[in-house]
Amino acid sequence: MLIVGELINTSRKAISESVDNGDAQYIKKIAIEQVEAGADYLDVNCGTKVFREKETMEWLINTIQEVVQVPLCIDSPNSEVLEAGLALCKYGQPMINSITDEKERFQKVIPLVSKYKAKIIALCMDDTGIPETADGRMRILKSLYVNLQASGVPDYDMYVDPLVMPISSVETAGMEVLDTIKAIKTEYPNVHFMCGLSNVSYGLPNRKTLNRLFVVQTMTLGMDGYILNPTDRGMMGTIFATQALMGQDSYCMRYLSAHRTGLYEEQQKS
Amino acid sequence: MLIVGELINTSRKAISESVDNGDAQYIKKIAIEQVEAGADYLDVNCGTKVFREKETMEWLINTIQEVVQVPLCIDSPNSEVLEAGLALCKYGQPMINSITDEKERFQKVIPLVSKYKAKIIALCMDDTGIPETADGRMRILKSLYVNLQASGVPDYDMYVDPLVMPISSVETAGMEVLDTIKAIKTEYPNVHFMCGLSNVSYGLPNRKTLNRLFVVQTMTLGMDGYILNPTDRGMMGTIFATQALMGQDSYCMRYLSAHRTGLYEEQQKS
Repeated sequence: MLIVGELINTSRKAISESVDNGDAQYIKKIAIEQVEAGADYLDVNCGTKVFREKETMEWLINTIQEVVQVPLCIDSPNSEVLEAGLALCKYGQPMINSITDEKERFQKVIPLVSKYKAKIIALCMDDTGIPETADGRMRILKSLYVNLQASGVPDYDMYVDPLVMPISSVETAGMEVLDTIKAIKTEYPNVHFMCGLSNVSYGLPNRKTLNRLFVVQTMTLGMDGYILNPTDRGMMGTIFATQALMGQDSYCMRYLSAHRTGLYEEQQKS
Repeated sequence: MLIVGELINTSRKAISESVDNGDAQYIKKIAIEQVEAGADYLDVNCGTKVFREKETMEWLINTIQEVVQVPLCIDSPNSEVLEAGLALCKYGQPMINSITDEKERFQKVIPLVSKYKAKIIALCMDDTGIPETADGRMRILKSLYVNLQASGVPDYDMYVDPLVMPISSVETAGMEVLDTIKAIKTEYPNVHFMCGLSNVSYGLPNRKTLNRLFVVQTMTLGMDGYILNPTDRGMMGTIFATQALMGQDSYCMRYLSAHRTGLYEEQQKS
């Protein structure tokens, strides 16, 4: 299981303001909190700072690496920003967020994957957009997989994102993701997964509950990577409990240790 | 999805006492509460009253049927008690809990399945006991399925119980159940499922949380029946939310209606 901490993103108001104010302390605090809560990677996204995205990315990465030694997930639609970020990564194997089968994007991002031997998040979309069905996504993945493999990317560095959409707009959206995961596990057993979850509950009440249950569903089918807020104790508790239920937690040791930190107290009250 | 309410069982102290005191009011109250909370069937078990199990079963069934009109799940190790109960069932298609591939048990129960055209809960065990692995359980089910079919039981009346065991004693116990469900869905796509959940968390803290997550896992793989406490609001909320995530709830209507009754308030706090 690979957890990518999602909090350092300038689309979040507090991060945007700390960037604008050069408040390195706040960025460091959020970096440390995510790693202490269990993040394996930290995502870094400053896409909202369109006119100074590169400088902001560099400042964020240097700031984060002053306090934590985890690998980073460089997250930008702009390949120059990706490269500037990757060049600064000091710890472990970096991850790129993301590549697609869109021709232009693929051509710009793939040289960076090779040069930095990065893990790559591969979205099941191409120039025609995001297909609604699992079959449509698998068609794109087939092409994307061939292209990634031809570029020398090993299966274990591919992190496929099946693309989670809101069940409030298309009621089969969750099921299509579950079917996509099943198909990927069958056809490409050695690739990994990465996805955000919160889209699934967009427009509905009790989003936390829905997001957590969707983690359980996708883990049960073999999903092994998430971009999420690791300081959400209920979410992390759900993941640890699910791992125990799946026999992935020797003697339930981590589950019991999470229990001792009080991670389940609130959930037990309902 | 078929929910069998589990509360009318004399192994529960309050039920045992109300039986001993002839307190029909309490039994009626529990029957009504379970049906109002969403139970499709009510399980009736008085196996602890060994020396007057038959009379107790008859009294319970008559008492229950005075106030609710749902079908019943007659639950006894004793085939005479099963028959006495089945003979009194007035509403819908009764269910028998349970049959196994143990030779003597099979021979005693199968005539009742035929005579009462009952749904039958089929446990994956035989005279050698309960196998630890999914493969072992499938071997038994193969024999049990052939025997049930030879006796004229249609697939849609078979409710297979993959037998949930505690992960605290064998850490792969949950995974073996998940693998058993997958194998059953592949080999016997038209049979149904029925199982209790609470065994999975035996010996561990936060049992409610673990039981609920195990419902999500098993539903995701296609399990469609549970024996549980339908008045556990967190559990029912989990089931409704999971159905919405699986596209089994048109326009998320039932989920939204459950939300309006406050079913998710507690879960959102964690």
